[in-house]
Amino acid sequence: MRAHDQNHRDFASDNYAGAHPEVLAALADANGGHQVSYGADVYTERLTEVLRAHFGERTEVYPVFNGTGANVTALTSLLPRWGAVVTTSNAHIHTDENGAPERISGLKLLTVDTPDGKLTPELIDRQAWGWGDEHRAQPLAVSITQSTELGTVYTAGEIRAIADHAHARGMTLHMDGARLANAAAALGVPLRDFTTDAGVDILSFGGTKNGILYGEAVLALNPAAATGLVYLRKLNMQLASKMRFVSAQLLALFEDDLYLRSATHANAMAARLRATLEEAALPGLTFSRPTQVNAVFAVLAAEVADRIRRKVRFYDWDRAAGEVRWMTAFDTTEADVDAFVAVIRAELLASSNV
Amino acid sequence: MRAHDQNHRDFASDNYAGAHPEVLAALADANGGHQVSYGADVYTERLTEVLRAHFGERTEVYPVFNGTGANVTALTSLLPRWGAVVTTSNAHIHTDENGAPERISGLKLLTVDTPDGKLTPELIDRQAWGWGDEHRAQPLAVSITQSTELGTVYTAGEIRAIADHAHARGMTLHMDGARLANAAAALGVPLRDFTTDAGVDILSFGGTKNGILYGEAVLALNPAAATGLVYLRKLNMQLASKMRFVSAQLLALFEDDLYLRSATHANAMAARLRATLEEAALPGLTFSRPTQVNAVFAVLAAEVADRIRRKVRFYDWDRAAGEVRWMTAFDTTEADVDAFVAVIRAELLASSNV
Amino acid sequence: MRAHDQNHRDFASDNYAGAHPEVLAALADANGGHQVSYGADVYTERLTEVLRAHFGERTEVYPVFNGTGANVTALTSLLPRWGAVVTTSNAHIHTDENGAPERISGLKLLTVDTPDGKLTPELIDRQAWGWGDEHRAQPLAVSITQSTELGTVYTAGEIRAIADHAHARGMTLHMDGARLANAAAALGVPLRDFTTDAGVDILSFGGTKNGILYGEAVLALNPAAATGLVYLRKLNMQLASKMRFVSAQLLALFEDDLYLRSATHANAMAARLRATLEEAALPGLTFSRPTQVNAVFAVLAAEVADRIRRKVRFYDWDRAAGEVRWMTAFDTTEADVDAFVAVIRAELLASSNV
Amino acid sequence: MRAHDQNHRDFASDNYAGAHPEVLAALADANGGHQVSYGADVYTERLTEVLRAHFGERTEVYPVFNGTGANVTALTSLLPRWGAVVTTSNAHIHTDENGAPERISGLKLLTVDTPDGKLTPELIDRQAWGWGDEHRAQPLAVSITQSTELGTVYTAGEIRAIADHAHARGMTLHMDGARLANAAAALGVPLRDFTTDAGVDILSFGGTKNGILYGEAVLALNPAAATGLVYLRKLNMQLASKMRFVSAQLLALFEDDLYLRSATHANAMAARLRATLEEAALPGLTFSRPTQVNAVFAVLAAEVADRIRRKVRFYDWDRAAGEVRWMTAFDTTEADVDAFVAVIRAELLASSNV
Repeated sequence: MRAHDQNHRDFASDNYAGAHPEVLAALADANGGHQVSYGADVYTERLTEVLRAHFGERTEVYPVFNGTGANVTALTSLLPRWGAVVTTSNAHIHTDENGAPERISGLKLLTVDTPDGKLTPELIDRQAWGWGDEHRAQPLAVSITQSTELGTVYTAGEIRAIADHAHARGMTLHMDGARLANAAAALGVPLRDFTTDAGVDILSFGGTKNGILYGEAVLALNPAAATGLVYLRKLNMQLASKMRFVSAQLLALFEDDLYLRSATHANAMAARLRATLEEAALPGLTFSRPTQVNAVFAVLAAEVADRIRRKVRFYDWDRAAGEVRWMTAFDTTEADVDAFVAVIRAELLASSNV
Repeated sequence: MRAHDQNHRDFASDNYAGAHPEVLAALADANGGHQVSYGADVYTERLTEVLRAHFGERTEVYPVFNGTGANVTALTSLLPRWGAVVTTSNAHIHTDENGAPERISGLKLLTVDTPDGKLTPELIDRQAWGWGDEHRAQPLAVSITQSTELGTVYTAGEIRAIADHAHARGMTLHMDGARLANAAAALGVPLRDFTTDAGVDILSFGGTKNGILYGEAVLALNPAAATGLVYLRKLNMQLASKMRFVSAQLLALFEDDLYLRSATHANAMAARLRATLEEAALPGLTFSRPTQVNAVFAVLAAEVADRIRRKVRFYDWDRAAGEVRWMTAFDTTEADVDAFVAVIRAELLASSNV
Repeated sequence: MRAHDQNHRDFASDNYAGAHPEVLAALADANGGHQVSYGADVYTERLTEVLRAHFGERTEVYPVFNGTGANVTALTSLLPRWGAVVTTSNAHIHTDENGAPERISGLKLLTVDTPDGKLTPELIDRQAWGWGDEHRAQPLAVSITQSTELGTVYTAGEIRAIADHAHARGMTLHMDGARLANAAAALGVPLRDFTTDAGVDILSFGGTKNGILYGEAVLALNPAAATGLVYLRKLNMQLASKMRFVSAQLLALFEDDLYLRSATHANAMAARLRATLEEAALPGLTFSRPTQVNAVFAVLAAEVADRIRRKVRFYDWDRAAGEVRWMTAFDTTEADVDAFVAVIRAELLASSNV
Repeated sequence: MRAHDQNHRDFASDNYAGAHPEVLAALADANGGHQVSYGADVYTERLTEVLRAHFGERTEVYPVFNGTGANVTALTSLLPRWGAVVTTSNAHIHTDENGAPERISGLKLLTVDTPDGKLTPELIDRQAWGWGDEHRAQPLAVSITQSTELGTVYTAGEIRAIADHAHARGMTLHMDGARLANAAAALGVPLRDFTTDAGVDILSFGGTKNGILYGEAVLALNPAAATGLVYLRKLNMQLASKMRFVSAQLLALFEDDLYLRSATHANAMAARLRATLEEAALPGLTFSRPTQVNAVFAVLAAEVADRIRRKVRFYDWDRAAGEVRWMTAFDTTEADVDAFVAVIRAELLASSNV
């Protein structure tokens, strides 16, 4: 039953996209016959091997269902019941998970405002204090997002500095990698350069936004820092019975570098969108943040944005400020970008002519 | 990458099976183009329509990832923070979810031993008391499993009696329908006869064991009894971003009665297994429970069971008692059954000849 | 403002009693001037010294407010988020704390029925299994109550057997000592004989039922088994700011063996009650359990019990069975007992004459 | 056993003080005889009457042990599992309760920076948005502290404005009244003027800092807004078995206006401290905040502060900024103030002479 237009694509989120055809093919290959449930299958075994090649031989791999599940499970494995997480005030775990870290695991988030979505050792220190004081939730982990919610990317060096700073204070480092592939594409370096080798202890690797149907993985890059993941995944309701299908999809991302091809393409489409619009120098349109991955943050009049959105969907980022977020995906085409530019141009010009 | 034998099937669990080909086809149809994430897509909309036709027009539909997630989310929507759930001591929520109801939502389970996995009004009364006493966790919901963990099936009348009893005491009724389709096939009546019309307030409908890759749905059959499901699903980490794929699979189950065809077949294969074995009157093999759906509970010497299992996998149910569980799935073939019988026969005879 | 009859005493619970005069005197002594809050005061310091003399030099002392707080804090310090506690089905933590262990800390209780309120290695084994299986809440602690909810007392040897059994399986041992003093009085041995030296890892020591206004203490007898108590006490809302007053009361119990004098007296009053009634051989009155501490469990017609209770309060234990619990306290007098016996006798005889 | 100097008083916190003699006398009066436990006693009954006279006839009274317990219990009664609380970034519930609101009840705190510790409708709006969006923790309550953590006091009109703003948006209003008596003394108006009549829905009334040994009360001023307090108090481990002693102390505060006499005195001592120091115009000493209740916030060199503190204890408020907090209590004497001033003067002058 085909119920929707398979040729329409928005600029709202990379999770509006479906799955890459190679992913569907991998599902078909993994289907048929019986496989042991809950992860004792050959696809999960192979996934571990493949991810260890990318992230290091110590890596422990725990496929899960979704990003919130990955983040909460990962953070919980790092922290005792009295632990707190230092993170940014626009971190997904703080703004978009309906308090799951607090509600599911009783974690306390200690947030810091940032100009660009990125923590630094100095910013961390605004919340990283008070160890031993029983009245204060104990800051024992740091969480960063790579690429960030604001479309920026940490360099490997920046992450190393954060990791060293955290570790020196007895804190561990979590990375929310919902868009890790986009960061890898932007940085042009191997994944482990800015994860394992930069001192990240645990990673939420995002598959869904990278072009699979569903599925993420908690990667314990430094297993000594994470406790009880096998139990936490289950009690956090993130243990897939037919795990072969999560693993097969994640495998599809890595076996022929699909993760990187897709992310590189999505990033390129955002760059094209931004470059074309900047070149056009349209009246009433400015850009509020750098475009390092697959998001373009722009500022324009809210009523113009609303007219554009009647044709192509996207989200306000800060409606009061007129800031919107335009996001590309693995399946965004050059024609999609050009058509979107045409809509934006037409509405902006119509508006400026009034 | 095909990495496993697609022609080998075990008798361990219906979640060892993969997905029905019609389900994979539905995924392909739902793919391509962009769809609004988090459930505002056409497949989820259509799923709601289809399930309302089955379960009643009031039904609210919340697709989720897995069974534990469905159960915990459903129960939490029924209960205040001081609530408790009366259930059987072999309920999945008590024995197989690593305490997720307690850990995620702070629910207290008040359990009752049963001979056959089925609650009755009398059994419920062993725990349903103490309302208003602040020292006692307040028994405000009952949870039953249909079909039960012991392979038995409640009749519509039995469920109606439980629902009436619960409602008369201010309690609500949850049904864990991880294998609801198998119960429907066994009873031969419409789904709503033993759910909505029998007084069930909320249902965890199971898709995974019925032949999809992943996906269940919380169905609020009596929405007045359930509070906050839209929020609870999210904070319980059960909200799929690309929900169209969960919904499309569930739709595939219902659009051409695949749910019933698959369950009927699985039940028939269990019946065939049991009948063949009973007819064979093999030495050292007895049956411990009725075979009403897709499970056969048998008793045999542990060492014989272990030898059989080297060829075909299955689980011990009660090792001390020598009880094992043999389970069929939508893809179990008559040939699979006959080959399994041959293995069982050979090992039992080899053992009795010693 | 004196608003109640200070000469009336019931047989309902040892928490109907007030505080021993020596306790009030200790409060007055501890009052005045300033003391550092949250436990850095001289009374808490001295309490630690005194309790170490009783329970061993390793003991760590955490005064808290009440018994539920002590139990939940103690158990939580023993267990990871996936942990479960093996205990009896009539344990206070299971029946009378409104699910606080589950709701506050997400603990799972795995219960066992007992004839006399006491666990044994064999009974523990009914629930102590499944380690490593992520689907099962991991049984990593045992909790026993001394004296038990049924008025029975474990011997030091019985506790040692339980501790050895638990430790051999990687489990730790918690003791709910809400009435520890009564057990000590019954056993006639030093406290450490049946706690620290018997292998108990952590103890909830009960002060309230032993004759103070409020206050219990979590005693980490084996501090290596308990993690984070300083934080858990605070986040469990059990950290008294003016802790000197909790500590001064507990000190009053121990400095001149008031704990033992009070408990010995309460036990003697229960023994007198039972002996007098047994001697009287009243029609329609039998005894359902041994009287080892300060509770007498009796069986009589519910309507007779209700008539008695109009004059002297007490609780039903199992109304369906006609079982009631009569409980003495540090302040119960011989005259109170004799007057109560007279009421019981009168009502029973009145009833039998009908 | 008197173990401390009853004539030494610090300026560290009002919880360094002991209990007022009238409170000890009330405990003695309430002692003796038996009273029904868990709140069905005559003192708790009378407390409810007395507090209703102060706060309105609808008021429901729940005595608890401590402030964190009162706050968490009160907030939890206002909120569903998906609720969030808008509060200030220096609220006690955010900074000093080790995450108890998050850990015990899964509440999410949405914080706002303030110049003076006081929320306003405008500040509330920075976090009060996003209702209906399942990704965002739902802001359904506001929490203010009266008097604030920064020693400031809301007027009745300011609170009314907040309450109206909150209610208009479907939010309820909690007041942390750990130092409510000090606010009442400062405002010079009846308690209900700035609580019940100003639209506060639920109040944590603080007894401990007002001069009792222990004890606070959750007051449901608008019982329709609060759900399940009788159960929440128990499961939050805040239900005193010998509740008569909590209630008798709180009664002592209200029966002869002791609450107001004590608070008025404490405020006067802070005012005296500030006035004397301001008049002295000491070098190197400034004041960072208004002194409206019983706290003086001053700025001086850290090493000078440390020398002063060797004689009289007090806490740094913001060590980096050299800000300290000097706090008075019901038992602070004029002589204490003058002696403290002398120490401050001596150390500041010694320092400036260097």
